[in-house]
Amino acid sequence: MAETEVVGVPANQKVERVLKTVRNETFAQKAEALKPKLHEWVDHPLSVVEFQPDPEAFFKCTPVRTHTIEELSTLSYGKGDEVILDFGSHRVGYLSFHVGVEGVNVDAPARLRLTFGEIPYDVTENLHPCETWISTSWLPDEVINVDWLPTDVDMPRRYSFRYLKIEVIDTSPKYKVRFLDIKVRAVSAISPLVAAGVPKLEGNDDELIGIDRISQVTLRDCMQTVFEDGPRRDRRVWLGDLRLQALANYCTFKDYDLVKRCLYLFAALPREDGSLPACLFEKPKLSPASDYIVDYDSLFGPIVYDYAVASGDLETAVELWPTILGSMKIALAHLDENGRFTSDAAAGWKFLDWSDGLETDAGMHGLVLFCCKEINRLATLIGKPVPFAEVVSKMIVGASSFYDDSLGVFVSGPARQVSWSSQAWLGLAGAMDPQICLKAITTAMADPKAVKPLTPYAYHHVAESLARNGGDEQCLRLMREYWGGMVRAGADTFWECFDAEDSRRSPYGDCHNNSYCHAWSCTPSYLLRVVLKDFLAGT
Amino acid sequence: MAETEVVGVPANQKVERVLKTVRNETFAQKAEALKPKLHEWVDHPLSVVEFQPDPEAFFKCTPVRTHTIEELSTLSYGKGDEVILDFGSHRVGYLSFHVGVEGVNVDAPARLRLTFGEIPYDVTENLHPCETWISTSWLPDEVINVDWLPTDVDMPRRYSFRYLKIEVIDTSPKYKVRFLDIKVRAVSAISPLVAAGVPKLEGNDDELIGIDRISQVTLRDCMQTVFEDGPRRDRRVWLGDLRLQALANYCTFKDYDLVKRCLYLFAALPREDGSLPACLFEKPKLSPASDYIVDYDSLFGPIVYDYAVASGDLETAVELWPTILGSMKIALAHLDENGRFTSDAAAGWKFLDWSDGLETDAGMHGLVLFCCKEINRLATLIGKPVPFAEVVSKMIVGASSFYDDSLGVFVSGPARQVSWSSQAWLGLAGAMDPQICLKAITTAMADPKAVKPLTPYAYHHVAESLARNGGDEQCLRLMREYWGGMVRAGADTFWECFDAEDSRRSPYGDCHNNSYCHAWSCTPSYLLRVVLKDFLAGT
Repeated sequence: MAETEVVGVPANQKVERVLKTVRNETFAQKAEALKPKLHEWVDHPLSVVEFQPDPEAFFKCTPVRTHTIEELSTLSYGKGDEVILDFGSHRVGYLSFHVGVEGVNVDAPARLRLTFGEIPYDVTENLHPCETWISTSWLPDEVINVDWLPTDVDMPRRYSFRYLKIEVIDTSPKYKVRFLDIKVRAVSAISPLVAAGVPKLEGNDDELIGIDRISQVTLRDCMQTVFEDGPRRDRRVWLGDLRLQALANYCTFKDYDLVKRCLYLFAALPREDGSLPACLFEKPKLSPASDYIVDYDSLFGPIVYDYAVASGDLETAVELWPTILGSMKIALAHLDENGRFTSDAAAGWKFLDWSDGLETDAGMHGLVLFCCKEINRLATLIGKPVPFAEVVSKMIVGASSFYDDSLGVFVSGPARQVSWSSQAWLGLAGAMDPQICLKAITTAMADPKAVKPLTPYAYHHVAESLARNGGDEQCLRLMREYWGGMVRAGADTFWECFDAEDSRRSPYGDCHNNSYCHAWSCTPSYLLRVVLKDFLAGT
Repeated sequence: MAETEVVGVPANQKVERVLKTVRNETFAQKAEALKPKLHEWVDHPLSVVEFQPDPEAFFKCTPVRTHTIEELSTLSYGKGDEVILDFGSHRVGYLSFHVGVEGVNVDAPARLRLTFGEIPYDVTENLHPCETWISTSWLPDEVINVDWLPTDVDMPRRYSFRYLKIEVIDTSPKYKVRFLDIKVRAVSAISPLVAAGVPKLEGNDDELIGIDRISQVTLRDCMQTVFEDGPRRDRRVWLGDLRLQALANYCTFKDYDLVKRCLYLFAALPREDGSLPACLFEKPKLSPASDYIVDYDSLFGPIVYDYAVASGDLETAVELWPTILGSMKIALAHLDENGRFTSDAAAGWKFLDWSDGLETDAGMHGLVLFCCKEINRLATLIGKPVPFAEVVSKMIVGASSFYDDSLGVFVSGPARQVSWSSQAWLGLAGAMDPQICLKAITTAMADPKAVKPLTPYAYHHVAESLARNGGDEQCLRLMREYWGGMVRAGADTFWECFDAEDSRRSPYGDCHNNSYCHAWSCTPSYLLRVVLKDFLAGT
């Protein structure tokens, strides 16, 4: 997920009143006790590079090594010079370096601009001005003035990057600077030992092995004191993203405590009607964002269910049970008397994806049905009365009203919009027979007029829905196309959004404000290791 | 003095080879032991201001209070907003403030630009690009990114300012920022108690009392762990500047130890031929600048003499005696067989002033003669053989060859240039009878074609030379015109350079890189309290 504002909410959504938070201090303390001490390790840049034009490349350029990192210490830079360093892969952490000097006098400070690049555009283009509707304060550049050279420089903020561009705005006519001992103190809740200990993906398919590896790096770099959506932006935990991160985590790093911490963080911040905020802030103190998303709220129960199954910790699920019931209230208030999800029936932003003009009724119907079913399963697991048996029955009936027999797809809204997301969620919910659902998904995917997903978050649900309805092969094909497409485009970590046809695509008006290590794109490890496990073993 | 580079050296000067430093560790340790612990005190801005156009004002604008500082905490600022705070007078120190927030979510960092203004132009104009031949790293602005609001911000660098402009580059659409508890931890070697204890200038002349007060503020803010030339730029000690600062200090703050420290710092860094660097760097470790200026080197002896007389500490003068003799070698190497100073006779930059095209032979003749006489006096004071009796005799004779009988002024160089500085230094040296010297100075001052000084450093020598040759009234008139002119222009501290006709005048190509608290302009206290004391008592 990502930062949102009112203009990001589709115009047909009612703007809700701001609800008070009824803080649960016991849960907040449980979450605090689970706060991890981050692991740290030091990495160095591998080479000095420049980007050369390459019309074949996704970003239209390719990094070419101009110097080894050993040679860097012999190079000096004066006013107007710049150098780009390549760390070889993506890191989240704290930069430090030594500024040496060459010249007769260090008679003035050095003014440097540091730009931290996740992708080539970050360091090959001027980031300012940035035509975005979210905050330009996210842009990954800093201007610093360094006194009393030579000296060590420790950058106090955390950055997320593979490339580092250093521009020398000025030294003085009497000296130039050198850059030595550049390093990043990388941080993650996952230690290098744990990361290295994840079993290799079975099989010999290099493309899938690469996709799995990049998924894990993405997840690792997003796992900090919470599951962040993206370490570059917005650096915080969102419920919908958390679910996918947790699933990828269970089959790789198995850090159950960090999931548990995030569950308690959200459970500590219910609103007065029992609903949960879409995201929350850890710093400067624990507080809910005002963002509310109906689908994210509803997904809290399924996250607890997944957690209970993966960890075996049923006690937590029992303790969070009242929170789960509260988190379904707004979603269920959208159901009409026929058990059909209707956006206008209640307030609250229905998200599903950032694709333009997405009609969410059908998809939300699927999502809410899916959540009810998962929560019913959790009830059985922990010995609670099944809460939504009747709702599920009604919604199964209601689901059929979204189905267009003649087209063989689910449609949404008065304009009977066909979108991949509608099919995906109704398919995940098992709203109709698997064959029908699979056919609906593939039909929509084959329809050039259908609304395609923009985000990996939505692509995940399409992919999983294909596999869950018997379309393992189609799922794998989609993965090779979509996540494989990012790999072919040069991704070191998976991105917040990806459009193979448009390297500048952004939900925010300017791709310079995109996040290119974004956790909702880390699910291939889960798809490959869990969802497609049997299929891959059989191929 | 100020940062210099080769292009700043007049083209007719030979470029010297770089000489090795023969470090004197004993002297370095003495200097280190004298390093002061700086005094600190906290000051707050007095009001929120805006600058309104004012064609009558020197800087064509006037600060007008828009809010009290109490009201500031109620104001919030979003993307593109700015606020200017007025601390009421000049401070050198460390800024800190609290960034509060107003809005529904602090969902992004805040990016701020802070600009520290000594004069209105610093905060009313865009500082970039800066058309200067010295380093633009001196420009007094910083861009910072602030995470996790609300929070305190402590700026780690030291600034020199009266005005603070805060521009909000961005927050996010969801919040604005407020600025609270803004303060500067001001620093100086001079405590507020000592500063307040300086006796009031005698008499009731408000203009002179104001000039004296501003001189002291200028000096105080330049007195740090050395006598800095300017706390904004270059933040280091230069020999020629040191002499004037020390003189102003003896009749005000009387901090003898800081002068002594600076003397030992220079004495710790003689070059292989015994000459002294024009300036030196304290940080990151004590080291000489490569800048060498013949006149600055020669002035070391007079500084020791002034110090010995003021402090009564003859022991230091005895210890530094060999250094003094070494510091005269290059100057004396410029004398021809007739005892006449000739630039071409030896290498080394002859400075005297930043005025364009200044011919320095006559002025340097005066300066070297002055130094020889002072050093002879010191020899007598400390019981050493008088070293330059013969040189003085010869130079007195040589001085007459610069005198143009028909014009009644000293002339310099093949083009027989008339400049204020030539008259000033030959007058200070007592090169001819006081009446002749006084007439020469006033004649040059009345000549519109004569080369005028640009800097207060040169104006000081003109003013003192007037008074030393019986022109107390003309000295006082010049002070009212020049330093009084800065006061009328709104100076809070005296400036590096001042041209009453041109508020953008700069030795560096762009006035944004000027220093407006510059110690070589702090001498009115010395002129009023010492040089003109008897005259003022009699008026």
